[in-house]
Amino acid sequence: MAVLGIDLGGTKTAGILYHQGEILERCRSTTDITSSETVIEGILSTCSRLLESSRSRGITVDSIGLGIAGFIDFERGVVTEAPNHPLHETPVKDILQSAFGLPVIVDNDANVAALAEARLGAGRGSRYLVHLTLGTGIGGGIVIDGEVYRGAQGAAAELGHMIIDENGPICNCGARGCLEALASGVAIYKRVEELSWTKKRSPMLDEFRANPLSFRAEAVGRHAAEGDELALSILRDAGKHLGVGITSIINIFNPDAVTLSGGLLGCFSFMEEEMRLTVDGMAIPISRRHAKILTSTLGEDGGTLGAALLAASLAG
Amino acid sequence: MAVLGIDLGGTKTAGILYHQGEILERCRSTTDITSSETVIEGILSTCSRLLESSRSRGITVDSIGLGIAGFIDFERGVVTEAPNHPLHETPVKDILQSAFGLPVIVDNDANVAALAEARLGAGRGSRYLVHLTLGTGIGGGIVIDGEVYRGAQGAAAELGHMIIDENGPICNCGARGCLEALASGVAIYKRVEELSWTKKRSPMLDEFRANPLSFRAEAVGRHAAEGDELALSILRDAGKHLGVGITSIINIFNPDAVTLSGGLLGCFSFMEEEMRLTVDGMAIPISRRHAKILTSTLGEDGGTLGAALLAASLAG
Repeated sequence: MAVLGIDLGGTKTAGILYHQGEILERCRSTTDITSSETVIEGILSTCSRLLESSRSRGITVDSIGLGIAGFIDFERGVVTEAPNHPLHETPVKDILQSAFGLPVIVDNDANVAALAEARLGAGRGSRYLVHLTLGTGIGGGIVIDGEVYRGAQGAAAELGHMIIDENGPICNCGARGCLEALASGVAIYKRVEELSWTKKRSPMLDEFRANPLSFRAEAVGRHAAEGDELALSILRDAGKHLGVGITSIINIFNPDAVTLSGGLLGCFSFMEEEMRLTVDGMAIPISRRHAKILTSTLGEDGGTLGAALLAASLAG
Repeated sequence: MAVLGIDLGGTKTAGILYHQGEILERCRSTTDITSSETVIEGILSTCSRLLESSRSRGITVDSIGLGIAGFIDFERGVVTEAPNHPLHETPVKDILQSAFGLPVIVDNDANVAALAEARLGAGRGSRYLVHLTLGTGIGGGIVIDGEVYRGAQGAAAELGHMIIDENGPICNCGARGCLEALASGVAIYKRVEELSWTKKRSPMLDEFRANPLSFRAEAVGRHAAEGDELALSILRDAGKHLGVGITSIINIFNPDAVTLSGGLLGCFSFMEEEMRLTVDGMAIPISRRHAKILTSTLGEDGGTLGAALLAASLAG
């Protein structure tokens, strides 16, 4: 059985042709976020190219799976809202089913990444796995008994919006002190910005002040590697906050594994020690000892592989 | 089919004989926490009395379920640790199975209460339900697809140990800022104690200062009802903290219902408004609109009924 797995992010649209446990073809393009139409066109052309490739190989594709950053109405396959691209109440499932005449399944990108980690990645063999995507924001996915947990309306696993500091900074979601407001790429960027208003000097702050708009959270990792003390302390703090969030996850789920992926892993070596110290000091010992905390082994394929696994579940 | 449902708390041991959806007999005694032997003797005698009653009615009991406040090794039926009574690595399941020759199932008391609420109580009909027991401490239970979620080792659902304020007060578990450290009976007691060190005056503080050791958190509700402003503000704060915890629960689980039980419900009318304002202001709207927040309708029967339902699941 062959399937397509598509990963739609705010900056790139990636897809794979997946056949008998192997990625036969990868396809990747920039997401054109001009309008919901241009985003959909990007998805359609990615699928078309992969379907063409399957035909030239003499393989029949059975279904298509999509992981999309945003709130998904899972049953209807509608993207209700997405922070990083203009899809809004967009019936992605229906659009693709009509275009290609194949069964389509649409899910949140972090749910899909969690499934990939639990079945094929760092958490392979885990019955209970919780996944965090550490990027601009923080997404979450929960796998129970090998299946994605979605809750009553498909809106579950918003682990970036666990509140870890009720007196903390305001989050994009409007609440205060969410994990995302303290340990995400945006949180790190904002911390640099705050420091830039002080009289402090450091190579990182020089770079930020020279061009704040082009500065990216990932640069903090580079400066930390070069010994910038402010960069180091920002990442250590973020690591501690991440550890608080993982502590709650361990106490709530008693999982086999907590897995981490996303762009912020580039800074993770400077966050990890504080994260582990925090979890070791705060989580309930029996659950702490059992839970492995692992970084993704699937890299950029995590999203597309998870989408492909979801598609395969459709075909039964 | 008839079963026994036993609820072992730190102060009382309660049991029911449950037959075809009805409680035929209730039995209740003080838990003698002198030693693990006296606790076990109390359980055995409760079971014996209920079994005698079943015989006199000509009913055959098929199995026994127990809900116990503490950490339970679910597979082995061992109470590994319990904060409020002296059971420690006690093989409760084996002891009862040998004594009565019946199948026995042992679970955490909050898990059991969650099951009762989901099947028979305030959350009846919920597919996804999260339950909090608000007492001296805060326990949690998670029901997914009608079954208790226990995680990898039966240690899941420690919702009282979600961290909601990483800079908050130290919790009994050793961590900082757990929900239990901010919204439980103990947390409320400590807040009164702190105020008693100040020069403030109020009827509640007078009562506390006269006899701190016999003062109970529930008394704060009585003083609030009589208009004590300090009592009111303590309960409003606790309600806000509870709202923060419920916000995280709603964002994580996208549940059909969050149900509440326990001794602190006596103070709940003074906590509820702040709790609801907090949840309405902070939780993700789609999940917030869907989740009902309900107080238990089972009262003191919640624990024994849940244990009976668990026992019934054994008998298939």
